[in-house]
Amino acid sequence: MSTGILVMGHGHFASGITSALELIMGRQTDYEAVDFPADSDKVELSQRMEQALKRLKGNDQILILTDLFSGTPFNVAMEKVTEQPALKLYYGFNLGMLMELISRRMFQADGSLTEGLAEVGQQQVGLFDPHSMEAYTEAGEDEL
Amino acid sequence: MSTGILVMGHGHFASGITSALELIMGRQTDYEAVDFPADSDKVELSQRMEQALKRLKGNDQILILTDLFSGTPFNVAMEKVTEQPALKLYYGFNLGMLMELISRRMFQADGSLTEGLAEVGQQQVGLFDPHSMEAYTEAGEDEL
Repeated sequence: MSTGILVMGHGHFASGITSALELIMGRQTDYEAVDFPADSDKVELSQRMEQALKRLKGNDQILILTDLFSGTPFNVAMEKVTEQPALKLYYGFNLGMLMELISRRMFQADGSLTEGLAEVGQQQVGLFDPHSMEAYTEAGEDEL
Repeated sequence: MSTGILVMGHGHFASGITSALELIMGRQTDYEAVDFPADSDKVELSQRMEQALKRLKGNDQILILTDLFSGTPFNVAMEKVTEQPALKLYYGFNLGMLMELISRRMFQADGSLTEGLAEVGQQQVGLFDPHSMEAYTEAGEDEL
């Protein structure tokens, strides 16, 4: 089962988080990042989303990830998802959640790809406790 | 009580999420975004972090937000936080959490600024349920 991923956000959020992802996990295919720069509008964004979805069309499923619950990128995607319930729409994602998704897509090519994915995103947000260095070292510090 | 904010991440994550933030909430002061582009290294990143922290020095407290638990931006910040426990270090933040922080900084200038902040970030991650349009409309759709 192949999965296409579309990342959308305000300003240059989408290309910014994609540059972080690709720095760590390499160049992605079946992956689209759609920005919503200050000088753009909803119609333009909607058109760019449609073009991106067209490029991902060969996939069995498409996941859309937006920066925020509400806001134009989410609203535009939401309208699409309401028309086509086969699309899945996530909001408020962070880099850890995106990396988990990419990693699952590489190694776990079945329908369970999205299982608990939002919860992974939630678990990846936190306040670092300077007294927990031990726990951190156990988790495996890397240099990426 | 004034708060300085330093955002750090891989690639152009920091400037990307900042462009989204400023599109929605306007230009920020006492705010620094430090990128870690592909052609950069840990020493360079560390220097840019120190310069950013110097510019934020006038504030009563400084919060550092990194894209990910682990990775060079987090590691560099962690070393700093371990030396200076007055700094607070968050990881895996998303746009909703950053917006909540900025909003609290504007309207809630006391020590409670960081109360439950990571939990806010967690709550802002989710999978949209197309059958919950009603809940969404109640939450207040806006056009940003």
